[in-house]
Amino acid sequence: MLGNFSYCNPTKLYFGEDSLEALRTELPKYGENVVLIYGGGSIKKNGIYDAVVRILQESGKRVAEIAGVMPNPTVDKLYEGVAVARAHGADLLLAVGGGSVCDYAKAVSVSVHCDEDPWEKYYIRFEEPSCETLPVGCVLTMVGTGSEMNAGAVITNPHTHQKIGHVFADEKIMPRFAILNPRYTMTLPQYQMVAGIYDIFNHICEQYFSGDDDNTSDYLSEGLMRSVIHASRIASRDPQDYEARSNLMWSATWALNTLLSRGKSTDWMVHMLGQAVGAYTDATHGMTLAAVSLPYYRHILPYGVAKFKRFAIQVWGVDPAGKDDEQVAREGLAAMEAWMRELGLVMDISKLGATADMVEGIADATILLPGGYKTLDRAEVVEILKESL
Amino acid sequence: MLGNFSYCNPTKLYFGEDSLEALRTELPKYGENVVLIYGGGSIKKNGIYDAVVRILQESGKRVAEIAGVMPNPTVDKLYEGVAVARAHGADLLLAVGGGSVCDYAKAVSVSVHCDEDPWEKYYIRFEEPSCETLPVGCVLTMVGTGSEMNAGAVITNPHTHQKIGHVFADEKIMPRFAILNPRYTMTLPQYQMVAGIYDIFNHICEQYFSGDDDNTSDYLSEGLMRSVIHASRIASRDPQDYEARSNLMWSATWALNTLLSRGKSTDWMVHMLGQAVGAYTDATHGMTLAAVSLPYYRHILPYGVAKFKRFAIQVWGVDPAGKDDEQVAREGLAAMEAWMRELGLVMDISKLGATADMVEGIADATILLPGGYKTLDRAEVVEILKESL
Repeated sequence: MLGNFSYCNPTKLYFGEDSLEALRTELPKYGENVVLIYGGGSIKKNGIYDAVVRILQESGKRVAEIAGVMPNPTVDKLYEGVAVARAHGADLLLAVGGGSVCDYAKAVSVSVHCDEDPWEKYYIRFEEPSCETLPVGCVLTMVGTGSEMNAGAVITNPHTHQKIGHVFADEKIMPRFAILNPRYTMTLPQYQMVAGIYDIFNHICEQYFSGDDDNTSDYLSEGLMRSVIHASRIASRDPQDYEARSNLMWSATWALNTLLSRGKSTDWMVHMLGQAVGAYTDATHGMTLAAVSLPYYRHILPYGVAKFKRFAIQVWGVDPAGKDDEQVAREGLAAMEAWMRELGLVMDISKLGATADMVEGIADATILLPGGYKTLDRAEVVEILKESL
Repeated sequence: MLGNFSYCNPTKLYFGEDSLEALRTELPKYGENVVLIYGGGSIKKNGIYDAVVRILQESGKRVAEIAGVMPNPTVDKLYEGVAVARAHGADLLLAVGGGSVCDYAKAVSVSVHCDEDPWEKYYIRFEEPSCETLPVGCVLTMVGTGSEMNAGAVITNPHTHQKIGHVFADEKIMPRFAILNPRYTMTLPQYQMVAGIYDIFNHICEQYFSGDDDNTSDYLSEGLMRSVIHASRIASRDPQDYEARSNLMWSATWALNTLLSRGKSTDWMVHMLGQAVGAYTDATHGMTLAAVSLPYYRHILPYGVAKFKRFAIQVWGVDPAGKDDEQVAREGLAAMEAWMRELGLVMDISKLGATADMVEGIADATILLPGGYKTLDRAEVVEILKESL
């Protein structure tokens, strides 16, 4: 049943081909010192950087920059960004990029006025900010993480091989506004697009495969999964299909903005496994999830047969007639595997740079969460990782 | 395809059996003068009034009351409430009741500091507030309207037989917080419960039956409709089933908090017809919708066969094998009718007090909206109303 919960998500979203114009409406709400945060510089090639800087200038803002935020933002990059924001007296952090850039901006937001080491405080002790935080705005150029409408921020410590996400409790850590222009996502290489698609899909799975109660969330999840599957097939054949790309962008936001998890337990072990793989290989997030998913789900299926059967029927249209429950459930995962291969997802961690001699280390780096149909022990993690190789 | 849109819904929701305690967290955010707004007094019998007043007192608030808000709040009642809120110097309007009470609180909110006649300004000229508005909080005791998380407010003018809804554009008109305790809804008579259930379902239909684009919203709508159907069957047999009542309460919020309509066209003609019936009969809102729905949907089906076919298959599980599209579509509506009769909904407006000699007047009071599969003309409205008798 639906447990007790609260829900609040005040992020203002502007969606569509002309949505960048909304920046002119939003910027006057904040002080003049803006820190513009972006990644490897693709926004300088596709014109988005110029368009954003023009609006910042025309809005009378003083702009400092943090460039070169990497796909898995590191703790050292976080320290560097905090110094830039402090020196600039930042009033607003404007992230222009994908989930990594947006996550990073949130990590800077909670760290600028923090007297302690943010890695220790937020990623080791998992504390909430006790200081003032800076508002974050986001111009999204890549789809998948949902970071544009949640309070999560994943940071990687390459020195300790730790990639850790903190979902902050206070809704004021969520971006104040986010600009979602599906056209911006069309410049992305196919590899990144399909990795993002699987990230979306898996966010829904992580919130779906847990509990045996009857819950509105699961019906919403099934609808959203069907939408993602449908749009992904169109987008993978024609990445320039605006309708498919816009549906993927909108689905991504709702897949991880806290709605689907309200009142129910969640799993998140695919993310724990994938993030540990990512900490060792620096591979694209969505691909690490894809590569560990089927070994994980096939491992836990016997503990959650009823839900995997429901998934097979409602999401994949498996006909249950004349089959036992486990058979129906397994046919659902087979349909999911066929779809993943059709998209061209990476299905083995070895293809992401993981080697057999890394398995023990990745297993050590995997956080064992309860909440799914079976709480894994370390031996099971090793087994799943070996099957994922 | 998904058109351009913005989305922002900052209402903080507290859901569950203990959610009233959150009032202690929310009240300190506002000044000391609270106007408590409620309806016919059922909250005095079931203990909710005492519980709310105790928290208001313990939070040090000065409380004035507006009691007796009727199911279809009138413009005269609005004027009365505005006078109470002005005299009290209200800092917060606290609505305790169902959608009517919550709608009414929002209408008072935009009217207290308004120099013009609010009926003329908001319900005839459909203007936005140009004055300061008061914050609204809500303790929900009835499920259906979604008013707890949107900026809509329906007011009835009995002198002119007009029942008109205004969905305000500014998200600050939405309740700042809403407390959703499914147990509070269990004291409701079965008639009111099933009317609320159909209101939820029809809100989804109004946003679903329009457009022939491919849209994430429609997948979410199908998931939500399936959840409502499933939970309603349990609740109508056992109204004390907490799981079913909690799923209905949560579905109601998401059925009409603007999510489902983002980026797509909408219909809303069932509400226009039902509201006109309501203005003549003062009948329960959800029942007016139920009584006009099937004649309306059967009338427009030929103009939107593809969507009605999709509805039949995805929502009602109709098997399309060997049938033509229109046959599948009609079987979907037949399944919907069977479900409506199973719940005990009123299927004829004559049972709500409408008579044949009212039909022309109700037709005059029906606002003809575009957006659905067929924009009705007045003759079609008369025809549908006659079929609904």
